[in-house]
Amino acid sequence: MTHSTEITSLLAFADTLADAAGAAILPHFRTGIAVANKAASGFDPVTLADQAAERAIRALITARYPDHGVLGEEFGETAGASGYRWVIDPIDGTRAFIAGLPLWGTLIALTHEGVPVLGVMDQPYLGERFVGAGGQAWGQTALGRADLRTRAMGRLEGALLSTTDPDLFAPQERVAFDAVRARCQLTRLGCDCYAYAMVAAGHIDLVIESGLKPYDILALIPIIEGAGGVVTDWRGAPAFAGGQVVAAGSAAVHAEALALLAGAAA
Amino acid sequence: MTHSTEITSLLAFADTLADAAGAAILPHFRTGIAVANKAASGFDPVTLADQAAERAIRALITARYPDHGVLGEEFGETAGASGYRWVIDPIDGTRAFIAGLPLWGTLIALTHEGVPVLGVMDQPYLGERFVGAGGQAWGQTALGRADLRTRAMGRLEGALLSTTDPDLFAPQERVAFDAVRARCQLTRLGCDCYAYAMVAAGHIDLVIESGLKPYDILALIPIIEGAGGVVTDWRGAPAFAGGQVVAAGSAAVHAEALALLAGAAA
Repeated sequence: MTHSTEITSLLAFADTLADAAGAAILPHFRTGIAVANKAASGFDPVTLADQAAERAIRALITARYPDHGVLGEEFGETAGASGYRWVIDPIDGTRAFIAGLPLWGTLIALTHEGVPVLGVMDQPYLGERFVGAGGQAWGQTALGRADLRTRAMGRLEGALLSTTDPDLFAPQERVAFDAVRARCQLTRLGCDCYAYAMVAAGHIDLVIESGLKPYDILALIPIIEGAGGVVTDWRGAPAFAGGQVVAAGSAAVHAEALALLAGAAA
Repeated sequence: MTHSTEITSLLAFADTLADAAGAAILPHFRTGIAVANKAASGFDPVTLADQAAERAIRALITARYPDHGVLGEEFGETAGASGYRWVIDPIDGTRAFIAGLPLWGTLIALTHEGVPVLGVMDQPYLGERFVGAGGQAWGQTALGRADLRTRAMGRLEGALLSTTDPDLFAPQERVAFDAVRARCQLTRLGCDCYAYAMVAAGHIDLVIESGLKPYDILALIPIIEGAGGVVTDWRGAPAFAGGQVVAAGSAAVHAEALALLAGAAA
């Protein structure tokens, strides 16, 4: 099997995984019984949806690629016998999900020897899917299918910044984040993985977060890089392990943000 | 014309207004040329969309109800010769719009002698519309059409809180907000009008904001009240003028929030 045939097969399979996850999750979205249900069963709808989606994804991987490893947010690690490992967050943005907001997403990454080579961010309620692989990225939205291109901002002034919640930063991190924020044009909060998709699509210029897990970021790296952006940790090293992450639409914005974040880099 | 016939006609007309606004706005959403276009023409896409939508709405009102007044966020006040006045925010959440996020909305209120009697919140990209009038509220979403019902939370503990950005509060307001936040289960940021729709739909329990304009809140009051919720200012008085607003899904949550906000009430 040639490399390009292999990646084509893997991309089609990743679409199948995302379809299965969406089908498992959507029946639980906006069911409006979070509180009562949690008391009755011990599981709230988002946990049920998270687990159902990850079970569906794991079953498909085991059947099709039994030698691939799997790391999932819900059920942990299953070792593989090849260099490939799927890294899954069935619902990134569980708090958005609980609040009825359609900005959560299913994150599906495929790593090879630890490096993310394919990423999918799927939002089944919106019918939106963002995909990156092989140095390219594309999105399917209500406006159709299109290649993704980040915006080539030359500096922080004029840039659109996003983070999920500034209160999630440690005090020293917050000082550094506020220094970046003070130079940007505007800041949007509360977006989880959706903000990264908007970086790839050229609408947001910069996302700064900390405390991420590998499954929070691995799928987003091929999408943003394939669209022309840059994703690293706050030291400028690969962000494959999560932690402090800075994702930018351009190298210039990335460099200016890093300079301000360096003092708080772990 | 009987009252119920009149409100039925006005509701159908409000749907027409929302349809027209959506048609005017959507071609400008995610055009991805915000920065370049602003420099070239002096108007960015969100301003063009805002103005196009308000022009479309005003033209329809003038043609159909020439004796109705209009207050719009973009073009100000047009006095009417009747007790009716339409209050319009074509795009509430312009910063979300600019960032490509689908949580902005078109707000259309009809007031009679100053009291909101009909409200529409429309999100054309999502195909979602939330409507309230005559003590009832209903929503049209991807999941179909359904009556809206707030959640009957008994106290702040367990409640889902939302505000667009805590940094928008004055210092004393922020202290009061943080006191509420400390008792709630979780907080979602960045939602503008969409958070109020989620209160009506029973997913969010409480929204606290300040500095609102009348056109930011008037359309949302009949929606939340029609779904069983409560909307007032931080003193417990009608919030028709905007300013400090607290919107709750239940009287109990509203009362507990008011008790903590009272010290910072304007």
